Amino acid sequence: MNKPIDQSAFQTPTVTTGALPSSSKVYTAPDADPTLRVPHRLVHLHESANEPDVPVYDTSGPYSDPSVTIDVEAGLARPRTEWVLARAAQYGNSVEAYDGREIKPEDNGGAKGKFLAREFPIKNQPLRGVGDAPITQYEFAKAGIITKEMIYVAERENLGRKAMVDGAEAKVAAGESFGAEIPAFVTPEFVRSEIARGRAVIPANINHPELEPQIIGRNFLVKINANIGNSAVASSVEEEVDKMVWATRWGADNVMDLSTGRNIHNTREWIIRNSPVPIGTVPIYQALEKVNGVAEDLTWEVYRDTLIEQCEQGVDYFTIHAGVRLAYIHLTANRVCGIVSRGGSIMAKWMLARHEESFLYTNFPEICDIMRRYDVTFSLGDGLRPGAVADANDRAQFAELETLGELTKIAWARGCQVMIEGPGHVPMHKIKVNMDKQLKECHEAPFYTLGPLTTDIAPGYDHITSGIGAAMIGWFGTSMLCYVTPKEHLGLPDRDDVKVGVITYKLAAHAADLAKGHPAAQIRDDALSRARFEFRWEDQFNLALDPETAKDFHDQTLPKDAHKTAHFCSMCGPKFCSMEITREVREYADGLSDNEKAALYPADAQTRGEEGAPATDREIKEGMDEMSAKFKELGGQIYLKAGE
Amino acid sequence: MNKPIDQSAFQTPTVTTGALPSSSKVYTAPDADPTLRVPHRLVHLHESANEPDVPVYDTSGPYSDPSVTIDVEAGLARPRTEWVLARAAQYGNSVEAYDGREIKPEDNGGAKGKFLAREFPIKNQPLRGVGDAPITQYEFAKAGIITKEMIYVAERENLGRKAMVDGAEAKVAAGESFGAEIPAFVTPEFVRSEIARGRAVIPANINHPELEPQIIGRNFLVKINANIGNSAVASSVEEEVDKMVWATRWGADNVMDLSTGRNIHNTREWIIRNSPVPIGTVPIYQALEKVNGVAEDLTWEVYRDTLIEQCEQGVDYFTIHAGVRLAYIHLTANRVCGIVSRGGSIMAKWMLARHEESFLYTNFPEICDIMRRYDVTFSLGDGLRPGAVADANDRAQFAELETLGELTKIAWARGCQVMIEGPGHVPMHKIKVNMDKQLKECHEAPFYTLGPLTTDIAPGYDHITSGIGAAMIGWFGTSMLCYVTPKEHLGLPDRDDVKVGVITYKLAAHAADLAKGHPAAQIRDDALSRARFEFRWEDQFNLALDPETAKDFHDQTLPKDAHKTAHFCSMCGPKFCSMEITREVREYADGLSDNEKAALYPADAQTRGEEGAPATDREIKEGMDEMSAKFKELGGQIYLKAGE
Repeated sequence: MNKPIDQSAFQTPTVTTGALPSSSKVYTAPDADPTLRVPHRLVHLHESANEPDVPVYDTSGPYSDPSVTIDVEAGLARPRTEWVLARAAQYGNSVEAYDGREIKPEDNGGAKGKFLAREFPIKNQPLRGVGDAPITQYEFAKAGIITKEMIYVAERENLGRKAMVDGAEAKVAAGESFGAEIPAFVTPEFVRSEIARGRAVIPANINHPELEPQIIGRNFLVKINANIGNSAVASSVEEEVDKMVWATRWGADNVMDLSTGRNIHNTREWIIRNSPVPIGTVPIYQALEKVNGVAEDLTWEVYRDTLIEQCEQGVDYFTIHAGVRLAYIHLTANRVCGIVSRGGSIMAKWMLARHEESFLYTNFPEICDIMRRYDVTFSLGDGLRPGAVADANDRAQFAELETLGELTKIAWARGCQVMIEGPGHVPMHKIKVNMDKQLKECHEAPFYTLGPLTTDIAPGYDHITSGIGAAMIGWFGTSMLCYVTPKEHLGLPDRDDVKVGVITYKLAAHAADLAKGHPAAQIRDDALSRARFEFRWEDQFNLALDPETAKDFHDQTLPKDAHKTAHFCSMCGPKFCSMEITREVREYADGLSDNEKAALYPADAQTRGEEGAPATDREIKEGMDEMSAKFKELGGQIYLKAGE
Repeated sequence: MNKPIDQSAFQTPTVTTGALPSSSKVYTAPDADPTLRVPHRLVHLHESANEPDVPVYDTSGPYSDPSVTIDVEAGLARPRTEWVLARAAQYGNSVEAYDGREIKPEDNGGAKGKFLAREFPIKNQPLRGVGDAPITQYEFAKAGIITKEMIYVAERENLGRKAMVDGAEAKVAAGESFGAEIPAFVTPEFVRSEIARGRAVIPANINHPELEPQIIGRNFLVKINANIGNSAVASSVEEEVDKMVWATRWGADNVMDLSTGRNIHNTREWIIRNSPVPIGTVPIYQALEKVNGVAEDLTWEVYRDTLIEQCEQGVDYFTIHAGVRLAYIHLTANRVCGIVSRGGSIMAKWMLARHEESFLYTNFPEICDIMRRYDVTFSLGDGLRPGAVADANDRAQFAELETLGELTKIAWARGCQVMIEGPGHVPMHKIKVNMDKQLKECHEAPFYTLGPLTTDIAPGYDHITSGIGAAMIGWFGTSMLCYVTPKEHLGLPDRDDVKVGVITYKLAAHAADLAKGHPAAQIRDDALSRARFEFRWEDQFNLALDPETAKDFHDQTLPKDAHKTAHFCSMCGPKFCSMEITREVREYADGLSDNEKAALYPADAQTRGEEGAPATDREIKEGMDEMSAKFKELGGQIYLKAGE
């Protein structure tokens, strides 16, 4: 396991750039701050569609903007440094630049020579908060101050809503939101209010100025997270940077770097400096490396130093398993799968070996104070999450959740933003209680779940077993869904697995948005459905979450270019097309008077909703008499022509 | 589109045979009829598991039994002919053999010479019912008679339940069944009762004696259907037979042959003669071919003749879109995607062109009488199902559903078994009302849905968008889920797509079984989870729905054989294993007295369920004092050894 780093790790990581098919990157300037440039993607439709371009939420950063020159050695532009410094100057000089902690050999696991991954070439002086004036988004929100980040995310969330209502008042769609309070339009003030109430977070370390901010909360679009990270067994720095860019290209709103083994520090630096999305980590992984993997040798000092190291690099949120208390460990003993969280296991090991309460729990106030100075968001880890459906919703899991609620209040009191992590493996009938209990115990702090997987019998397809649970818990109120790839439980995901995981979770999150009634969510579905109905194949591909795969699948059966505009598809063939027939129905219905329609199917039946009944035979006959002449001429003409 | 049939179509179809990994086919003899041989699959675990073999529901027929010689030219054995004839003799001489309808050139779309697929080599004289004595499973059930099929399916459904309870009383698991009445054990009498109430069906044409019967109903395991079928554009007889065998190998409980174009008759004959699972069709597809694809030329006589043709071949269930009435057609005019059902479109076309009520509706009683004579089950088609989330749950869809309820009663009155087809494209918050309305309108006849797809933005991943909806509606009470492959909306599924579709729907159906509380459903999850926990990699693969893919994914990261038994996985590496740590937790918990446990986490907190609270700090300290000595010796020993 001490294999040399591949030479490619020393080279500049190659990443995927360029626009998505038939798409262009546009930037809008929010009314509240016209100096901001908020990105989204416009999907251009064929002119025969006679429809406006379809706006799509865009997580891909500058990589999909052909007008931006990408230089991975330089990293992305850093506009947020100015935002942070300007508001610090305005509100109490709360931020200072300083030299920062010196990088130590153990930060990279003692890797040397050809085993050491190259450092990122540019060093920036880190910022940190000082004093009691507001530093974090939470503190600004509590103080009634709207930050640029809040304006930015409000504009970003509203994409499409303006187009939908065409200037008129927006309406929340007729979904079932289970008590969420989704507004018709997202205003910066609404964002501020949600953050101040602890119901939403903007993970945005002041040392990650490359970030394009986004908001995570139950009353906003459901977000997804993609995990990347090398391990002791496989993968290189270059692969991880590429995976980050790749994951965001397909829609990852957040990326967690779960690297273990050597070169953790340098890998992370390359990732953050090139990341347009928030980066999360689990600091205990690196701390453990620093004590050579011996959990009982972990100390608060080593952990604390690791937190500061990562705060200075710009990590946006930390998973901290401070809810795994000594008192809960024995509750897991009779589980089928015990403790499956790596962080939870490490802490359990430490507590067992020393017979002490977790140092994460006992030092929690100081952890808050460190994270506040950089505005690193808490992602309070569920170290006792179930690793099998057999273990779902047990006392160990829920005891920890209760403690996370207690810690949430401490973190808020010390000015920090907080998310709560959730399971895991949960059969469908046990999912909703997870959401309900989390809202109650954790005071509506955003829930961030892994899946959950709804069955354990399909390794190789756990993106799907978990996509089912993710869509459901997203609907019920979860704010962010951590993806699961097809390799879950089996191996490390490669590029293709990352893409499949991201697309699966994007569709699950979107299904949740639709069901919750997010105002503009259905715009994309409807545009794609119209394209499908009208045989605008290219538009159908381009509006898809994964245009490449959609086009590839189509071409496997009908490869010719002519078939892209053909008025049939391979399922039915040219003479046998249900969609073509529907056109005729429309011609027919257009020719019916209201009286005729009423005769066919009485209006009261049409409006009685579920209780409606069909017309009687007599009513139908009367309507038919009226229509009879019309049909003689219509009947012979309306069969489709494509087959001839 | 008049391309010649590939020469391979004239050869013997090659199909996949052989046992699944580490599995053997076993047959059990039900107590109620020890002459029956009911198949299931036993998955053998590694001896280190020290666990019994895991029984798995097995749809794969004789193909996975190495002791059976497969001869596709001869077809499968035909044991059910004797069952049918014996009971007919016993109960009123209700079945006769006869010469049957002569095969006409139009049955194969007029294909000649090298365009004509070879006939199946063996001709069997068909059976048909005569007189009023019971012929169908429904009629036997109503008469209080338990058939061999009922005994067979009861035994099949119970698999694993006996193993679970080890002779003791079985219990229904603590699921949420939404009013389903799932028994602890399935008895033949329970099966009979459910069929008599119309709540379950055994699709089993008396001319499909190769069939291994299974039951479809809300109080039984959720079943899945795989669609195959050639079209005018692509695929051959050989491919379709292979797809049928392939789909059942991975778990398809039923297969629909949706062939269009030429050679429909001969393709179907090869499929049925080799199929261990029920075969469904949509007869209007073939009828349309017989009138050269001109919908308005369809007649009752052509359709009727097609029904008899397919009844004689042994088709087990027919999709019949008799609920698409003239009065409803205009209700679809303002839809985004109009009428997307092929059958619904054909009938709409016919009605528009002639301005007459549907001949399927007006001749419905005679259709019943034909189907009764062969015991072909109705699958009342949802010709007006929504083709986009925008069209879900509209008046057109629900008006048709109400008519399907009316037709259900007619079919029952005439002795037929009935299922009801359902949508389609439905966002999550609109799924449950579909189930509830179906149960109410259709008098609890089994629901059989396509997906539903919960969003339209992911072509290429519609097995997943629909797998989400399928798992949910299966949980709510749907009896059978029609699969969707990744190629849905884009092209014809190939072998790989069929497999992905089947596995996705198996996992969705299983997730539904778990959530409903099916007594033995969790046996497989728990066995696999234990294997995962204990690093029995091969057992994990073998218990998976798709052992090949699970193993392949594992081997991509850790290909060496030694890694199959390694006590770590690639996600964590050898020194960093959460599951290993859990073992230590067990050692620790085993060493705690009840007093110590109570001190750590009070018993009342453990039993208070959701309301439980963690121990106080004082309580924890007291418990710690008691345990302190024990830890001194335990602490140094329990870190995992694998990394050394």
